[in-house]
Amino acid sequence: MQIHKIQSQFKTVALVGRSNTPGIAEPLSALAQTIAKRGFEVVFEAQTAEEIGAQGYPALQPAEIGARADVAVVLGGDGTMLGIGRQLAPYRTPLIGINHGRLGFITDIAFSEMQEVVPQLLAGSFEREERSLLESRITRDGDPIYHALAFNDVVVNRSGFSGMAELRVNVDGRFMYNQRSDGLIVATPTGSTAYALSSQGPILHPQLQGIVLVPIAPHALSNRPIVLPDDCKVSIQIVAGRDVNVNFDMQSFTALELNDVIEVRRSRHTVPFLHPVGYSYYRTLRKKLHWNEHPSLQNDPED
Amino acid sequence: MQIHKIQSQFKTVALVGRSNTPGIAEPLSALAQTIAKRGFEVVFEAQTAEEIGAQGYPALQPAEIGARADVAVVLGGDGTMLGIGRQLAPYRTPLIGINHGRLGFITDIAFSEMQEVVPQLLAGSFEREERSLLESRITRDGDPIYHALAFNDVVVNRSGFSGMAELRVNVDGRFMYNQRSDGLIVATPTGSTAYALSSQGPILHPQLQGIVLVPIAPHALSNRPIVLPDDCKVSIQIVAGRDVNVNFDMQSFTALELNDVIEVRRSRHTVPFLHPVGYSYYRTLRKKLHWNEHPSLQNDPED
Amino acid sequence: MQIHKIQSQFKTVALVGRSNTPGIAEPLSALAQTIAKRGFEVVFEAQTAEEIGAQGYPALQPAEIGARADVAVVLGGDGTMLGIGRQLAPYRTPLIGINHGRLGFITDIAFSEMQEVVPQLLAGSFEREERSLLESRITRDGDPIYHALAFNDVVVNRSGFSGMAELRVNVDGRFMYNQRSDGLIVATPTGSTAYALSSQGPILHPQLQGIVLVPIAPHALSNRPIVLPDDCKVSIQIVAGRDVNVNFDMQSFTALELNDVIEVRRSRHTVPFLHPVGYSYYRTLRKKLHWNEHPSLQNDPED
Amino acid sequence: MQIHKIQSQFKTVALVGRSNTPGIAEPLSALAQTIAKRGFEVVFEAQTAEEIGAQGYPALQPAEIGARADVAVVLGGDGTMLGIGRQLAPYRTPLIGINHGRLGFITDIAFSEMQEVVPQLLAGSFEREERSLLESRITRDGDPIYHALAFNDVVVNRSGFSGMAELRVNVDGRFMYNQRSDGLIVATPTGSTAYALSSQGPILHPQLQGIVLVPIAPHALSNRPIVLPDDCKVSIQIVAGRDVNVNFDMQSFTALELNDVIEVRRSRHTVPFLHPVGYSYYRTLRKKLHWNEHPSLQNDPED
Repeated sequence: MQIHKIQSQFKTVALVGRSNTPGIAEPLSALAQTIAKRGFEVVFEAQTAEEIGAQGYPALQPAEIGARADVAVVLGGDGTMLGIGRQLAPYRTPLIGINHGRLGFITDIAFSEMQEVVPQLLAGSFEREERSLLESRITRDGDPIYHALAFNDVVVNRSGFSGMAELRVNVDGRFMYNQRSDGLIVATPTGSTAYALSSQGPILHPQLQGIVLVPIAPHALSNRPIVLPDDCKVSIQIVAGRDVNVNFDMQSFTALELNDVIEVRRSRHTVPFLHPVGYSYYRTLRKKLHWNEHPSLQNDPED
Repeated sequence: MQIHKIQSQFKTVALVGRSNTPGIAEPLSALAQTIAKRGFEVVFEAQTAEEIGAQGYPALQPAEIGARADVAVVLGGDGTMLGIGRQLAPYRTPLIGINHGRLGFITDIAFSEMQEVVPQLLAGSFEREERSLLESRITRDGDPIYHALAFNDVVVNRSGFSGMAELRVNVDGRFMYNQRSDGLIVATPTGSTAYALSSQGPILHPQLQGIVLVPIAPHALSNRPIVLPDDCKVSIQIVAGRDVNVNFDMQSFTALELNDVIEVRRSRHTVPFLHPVGYSYYRTLRKKLHWNEHPSLQNDPED
Repeated sequence: MQIHKIQSQFKTVALVGRSNTPGIAEPLSALAQTIAKRGFEVVFEAQTAEEIGAQGYPALQPAEIGARADVAVVLGGDGTMLGIGRQLAPYRTPLIGINHGRLGFITDIAFSEMQEVVPQLLAGSFEREERSLLESRITRDGDPIYHALAFNDVVVNRSGFSGMAELRVNVDGRFMYNQRSDGLIVATPTGSTAYALSSQGPILHPQLQGIVLVPIAPHALSNRPIVLPDDCKVSIQIVAGRDVNVNFDMQSFTALELNDVIEVRRSRHTVPFLHPVGYSYYRTLRKKLHWNEHPSLQNDPED
Repeated sequence: MQIHKIQSQFKTVALVGRSNTPGIAEPLSALAQTIAKRGFEVVFEAQTAEEIGAQGYPALQPAEIGARADVAVVLGGDGTMLGIGRQLAPYRTPLIGINHGRLGFITDIAFSEMQEVVPQLLAGSFEREERSLLESRITRDGDPIYHALAFNDVVVNRSGFSGMAELRVNVDGRFMYNQRSDGLIVATPTGSTAYALSSQGPILHPQLQGIVLVPIAPHALSNRPIVLPDDCKVSIQIVAGRDVNVNFDMQSFTALELNDVIEVRRSRHTVPFLHPVGYSYYRTLRKKLHWNEHPSLQNDPED
C-alpha cells in the first residue's frame, strides 16, 4: 500500500463519533483508513474508539485531542458538534461536521459524501469560519457556584409544573427590564437558529458580532427580542418563580434558587468551522429550515 | 337595623375568597353583612369560612354551593375564579368576580368598589355572559386514566429538563399534523388571553364558538395557531419526548407516557359571568393587557 | 354516440375559465364534452365562451348562470374562484374548483385530474361545505357611497407613498381601539389563509363562525389579532392618514377620505364548495402552505 | 449683560427647528439667547431662521452648518432628526435632540427641560454615541439612477393598489432568497425601532454592528427576519410586481421598474448623538415603546 504524501496545514486528524449510534463503526473506520492513506496521522476520541472498536489508532480524551490534533472530524448530529465544540474551544481546534442526525444544521457534510468530501477539506480546500461561544457563571449569595460554556445558548427556564418566572435583567450594569415569562434565551448566532428561533427570535448571521435575548412565552404583549453587541455582559437574576433552572446548549442543567444570578458574556474562545468550498449559509437556511420556502417559487439559482 | 327587602332573581348568595390571603377577612365579612342586610341569604364556601373565621353564616362545600346558591361572589385573582368556576360548572351557578389579584382579567370588579357594585349586580343590574369550558380525557393503552375540566386551557408540555416533544394531533378523527415543539395549548376564548396569548396566539372573543390550538416553541418555522369550531374533538398523542405532562388551567398536572392520548372537547357545561352594566371586553383588553396601547394616542372615548 | 343517463342532483353545469389564460381552450372543451356525454346540460360563462371559442353551448352572464345552473365548475386560480363566487353568491350556486393557478388553495382539484374527478363530483360523490362572505358598505358624511361583497377579506390600507393611518374601530357600536398602522384586514375563514396569514393572523377553520381582525404593521408593540363571532358588525373610521384605500379580495379598490366609515358584517349569502370525497382541509394546509412542515418528519399517514 | 466664558469643546452651536411648527419661535429664541449668553456662537438653520423670524444670528444652509458648527441642537420629532442627520452626516456634526413630536424616540430631551439640559450638554456633560447610516444606490439596466442615504431604513414596498412583489435578494454576491411579499425593510439599529419593529423585526442595540432585513407581509409562513453584519452589501432586484417603490426613511420616494436593483450598504459616515449623562437606551425602550410593559410590575428601579 502506497501512501501519498501531500502538503497540508494539517498533520493530525481526530475522529469523533456520536455515542450510542449503531451503524457508524464501519463508515468511521473506512474514513480513518482513507485519511491515513493520504498521510495524515489519525487519532480517535476515546469513547468513540471504544464504542466502534477502532484498532490501530491512538484513543485520546478531548483535552488531548485539543493539544495534539490539528483538526477534528465530527460525525453525528448538531448535538455532537456542540458537545465536542465546547470541549475543544480552549484549543481552537477546527471542526469538520458530518451529518448523521436529523437536521444537521451545523454538520454540513452529508453522510453519504464524507469519504469524498472530507479528504478535500483536509487537503486545504475549505472555507473557514469562526463561531463565537458564551461563557456563563452562576452566583448564589455572591459566591460562584457553577461555570459553563455554551455554543448555542444559555436558557433560563421554568419547569413544566410551575407558573411563570420573574427575571430581572441587567446589561453592562444597567437595568434592562423585569420580565415575567416562562424564561429567557441568550443565544449566539449559532444558537439563533436553534431554540431561539422556535421562540420567535430572529436569525443572526454567524459573522455578526452579536447575541440575542429571546423571551419564552412572555407575559407582556409588547415584549420583543433584542440583539446586543457581543462584548456586553448580561446578568439575569431570579426574582420570582419555582423550579427554575438554567441549561447550556440543552446539554447541562442546573437548578436555580431565588436571587441566583446568571451572568453571560462572550467567551474569549471561538470555534473554527471548516466548510466545503462554495458553502452558503443562506442555502442551509433554505434547505434545512425551509426558510422563506414558497410552494410556487422553484427558481433557486443554486439548485 | 332595618332590612330592605328587594325583588331579585337571586335569593342565596355564596361568598368565596382566595385561600391563604391576608387582609380579606374584614372586607369579606363586611360584604356579607351588606348583602345580608339587603335580604339575601348569605353562605360561605367552607374553606373561606374557616380561614377568615366567618360567623353566623352556613359554610358549604362547592357542590353544596352549586346546589343551593343562586350566585357566587368570588374574591381573589383569576386563578380563584378558574378553580371555583370548574367546580360550580355542573350547577351553572353564575359568578361575580372581584379582583384581589395581580391582573384580574376575569375578575372585573375592583376590590375598592365591591361594597358598592356587588349589591347593584345582585339587585339585577348586570350583563350576563356564558363562558365555555373544555372537557379532557386521558387514555393509556386505550383505558381512561384521568378526566378533568378546564376553563382556560389544556396544556401539553415538556418539562424544563428535556428536549422537544413530538405530538400527533387529530381533529374529528382526521390527521392534522405531527408537531415537534415544547408543547401544545388548547384554549377556550377565556383562556385565549392567558398562556396562549404569551405563546403568540390570537385573542378570541368570549362569544366566539371556537377554540384555539397554539404551539409552544414549535420547531417548524411555518407553524401557526389555528382556530377551530368548538364542537370538534381534538386528540393529541405523545409520539416522542421525555417528561411530558399535561395541565388543566395550570392548576392540576398529570405526567404522561409515550402513546398516551389526550382528548379535548367542549364541555356541555358553561359558566355564566355577571358583569356590571356597561362592561366592555375591549376596554378590559386595553386596560389590563395594554392591548394596542399607543404612547401617543390618548383619545380613548371611554376614559 | 351513446349518452349515459345518470341520476344526479345536478342538471345544468356551468363552466367558467380564468380570462386571458392560454392553453385552457382545449381542456375546457374536452371537459364540456365529457360532461355533456354524461347527460348534463352544459353552459359556459359568456366571457369564457368567447375567449376559448366554445361552440354549441349557451353562453351566459354570471347572473344567468346563477339563475339557471345547478353547479359551476371553475378553472383558474384562487382569484377566479373569488370573483365568480362573489357574483354567484346570491344564487347559492355550488362551486367546484380546478387549480390552474400558482397556489390553488381553494381550487382543490388538480388540473391534470379534472377529466376524471369532475364527473365523479357531478355524479354526487362529493363533500359539501358552506363558505361565508363579508358584506361591506362605505359611508361618507353619513351617505353610503359604495357597497361590495368580499369572499376573502376587506382590507383598509395606506398607499406605499404615505405614512401610517389611524383607524378607529367599533364593534357592535362599542369602541374597540384606535389603531395606528399601515392598515387593517377583516378576513373570513376563507381569507384567513390569504393576506391575513402573511400579516401574522391565525388560521380559521372554514366551519368556524368567526372573522378575524389583523392589523398591518401596527405601531403598538402590543397589538394582536382578534377573532370575533361572525354575527358582529365591525365599523372602521379613517381618523388620520393620506392616500388610504379599501379593497375587497384585492379585486376592487376604492379611495377613502378622512372620516369615511367602512362597515363590515357577514353577508347573508354563503357559497357552497364541493370537494372530492376524502378532502382534508388540514392536508391542504400542509401541502399548499407548508404548514408546520418539518424537514425531518416524513411520517404523514395520509401520504 | 454679563457673559460667562466657559471651557467647552464646542464653540459654534447650530439650532434647527421642525418646519411649519407653531409655537416654537419663542422657545427657540430663548434657547438661542441662553446659549449665546454662555459664550457660544449661535447660528440658525436657514429655513428655521426664516420661519421663526430669528434676528441677530447667522442663517446657514445645512452644508454650511456642517462646515462651521461644532454641534447641532435639533427641536422637533424623530423625522426632523433623521432629515438633518442625513444632511450633516458627511460633516460628522454631533446632534442633540429635543422632542417636540409625538413619540420622540431619538429626540431624548423633553421640550420642557431644554433650557436647563441643553447648556449642560454644551458644557461637556454628555454621553456620546455613534449611529450608523445606510447608503443606497438604484441601478436600472446597469446604470445608476438614484443615490440616497438612510438613517432608519431603506424600504422596498408595493403600493396599496397592487398585489405582491417578488424580490430577489443577494448578499455579498451570494443568493439569499426570492421573496414574495409586500416588500422588504433594510434597517439600521436606529431604524430597528421604527417601521421594522411594526413588521415584527427585532430590536437592535445602537452599538450593534449589524443591519436587519425584515419582510413586509411575506407570503411564505417560514420567513423570519435576519440580522447581518453591517459590512455586507445587500442587493435587491425587482423580479415581479406592479407599482413598486423604494423609500429612504419614509422621506424620499422613488418609483421602481422591473429588474431595477437596489443596493444597500453601510455608509462610511456615522452621526454622533449626544445624550444627557445617565441616558439609558433600555429606559427609552420601556418608556416610549412600552417595551415589555407589565400591568402589574411597577418595580422599575430607575423610576
